[in-house]
Amino acid sequence: MIHTSNRPIGVFDSGIGGLTVAAAMHARTPSEDIIYLGDTARVPYGTKSTHAVNRYALECALFLLNQGVKLIVVACNTASSIALTRLREILSVPLIGVVEPGVKAALSSSAHKRIGVIGTPSTINSGAYQSRLRELAPEVEVYGKACPLLVPMAEEGRLKGEIVDMVLEDYLGSLKRRKVDSLILGCTHYPLFKPSIAGVMGDDVHLVDSAQTTAESVEEVLLREGMLRTHGTGTVKCYVTDVPRQFNKLGRLFFGDSLGKVSRVTLS
Amino acid sequence: MIHTSNRPIGVFDSGIGGLTVAAAMHARTPSEDIIYLGDTARVPYGTKSTHAVNRYALECALFLLNQGVKLIVVACNTASSIALTRLREILSVPLIGVVEPGVKAALSSSAHKRIGVIGTPSTINSGAYQSRLRELAPEVEVYGKACPLLVPMAEEGRLKGEIVDMVLEDYLGSLKRRKVDSLILGCTHYPLFKPSIAGVMGDDVHLVDSAQTTAESVEEVLLREGMLRTHGTGTVKCYVTDVPRQFNKLGRLFFGDSLGKVSRVTLS
Repeated sequence: MIHTSNRPIGVFDSGIGGLTVAAAMHARTPSEDIIYLGDTARVPYGTKSTHAVNRYALECALFLLNQGVKLIVVACNTASSIALTRLREILSVPLIGVVEPGVKAALSSSAHKRIGVIGTPSTINSGAYQSRLRELAPEVEVYGKACPLLVPMAEEGRLKGEIVDMVLEDYLGSLKRRKVDSLILGCTHYPLFKPSIAGVMGDDVHLVDSAQTTAESVEEVLLREGMLRTHGTGTVKCYVTDVPRQFNKLGRLFFGDSLGKVSRVTLS
Repeated sequence: MIHTSNRPIGVFDSGIGGLTVAAAMHARTPSEDIIYLGDTARVPYGTKSTHAVNRYALECALFLLNQGVKLIVVACNTASSIALTRLREILSVPLIGVVEPGVKAALSSSAHKRIGVIGTPSTINSGAYQSRLRELAPEVEVYGKACPLLVPMAEEGRLKGEIVDMVLEDYLGSLKRRKVDSLILGCTHYPLFKPSIAGVMGDDVHLVDSAQTTAESVEEVLLREGMLRTHGTGTVKCYVTDVPRQFNKLGRLFFGDSLGKVSRVTLS
């Protein structure tokens, strides 16, 4: 039997944006083997119903459990917002989402406790970020805003320029007027727009990208559970449910050039 | 046994944009019962691989066949472009796509045989419109352009305004410079942008919306096959694979206020 610490960590996302989280984990805990699953056949989750997101998230988690993972990271903000509580009820393996790390990073970076959250319609509508922020800091002012065009713009490779700036002005205008001093980028695609978002929001607003803090949470939990692997060099194995035309270009955008072989699997 | 003519017609689309085709059919052949299936759990098809679109289209068609349909309309441009030939090989029921009717309408409306086609990345990349236009009219000049932001903009309810105009200028600029006199709106969502597209392209460019011509093709095939139902008032029954939050608003946008009860089904 393989000792728990030698088993891989599973990471899943609706698409390949979660590779940023896998990359941060690979940098932070380099001995860990990572198995990544991107549900590219059913992406996006952010415009689907709670019912659909719950079903997809469970199917992704079961696939990873069948690969023998010791811990699962829900790298998708929509799935973290909607399905994490239910997954924790059903499954015995430790589960880490991206909402909690993002919330903690935002609270520690916000001087005036005026925090904005942007995400997919499903993430914002779930209220997961907003209610967790208020639980941890009842005095906080939270403003959520759904930004449905940002994911398709990122996947089109449109990361800057006049149209991007106008769309961002349109989405972020109300958050700017409310003088938020910290903005949670509550979708794995949004860090790609960091320079443009900073241009619109101004340099005083702290942009919270949860990849880094999620990788820190993973390390903490592994240490606490006695599951941390401390020897050897970990590998990253990537599965997707569909391989669309621009996959390789996009994969490198999110993970970097060291992204290895990608295999296609069918979940249902 | 039910006489063939009394059996319903099946219509499927990746989402609910195809309801415009169902609405045109309901107006043209009002005695026909229509069963509509929108694969909203896996929408969009337009950014997925050929492999995925083929699998999804077959699953949609099989669902409709299990409802006893006499004919299937593939109302999705992406599925029509990629999967129709294969479906015709496999299935015995008559199948009608939206590409052929759109191509014929464009050829008859284009005086100078300079035709533009806009659609999802998968539709444009498949070359289905382009090659069918060239087959029927070898002298034609065809220019295709993928417009990936238009579907998410439509689903956000953003149908006009400065951002829409800038995005359209960006996508349509090259077609305008090539002086196309007819533009195929090769995606069921695009007719929602007709006024804005006309504003960018100018009034001289004919905009081809295939809903109407597809409904005419359906009538022709039903007549030819002796399947046309000529008595009674047909019903429209709508199935979707997911019921997202804004479904009712969007459904009415595409079908009109008479859209009846919608049921959720699971395909796989």
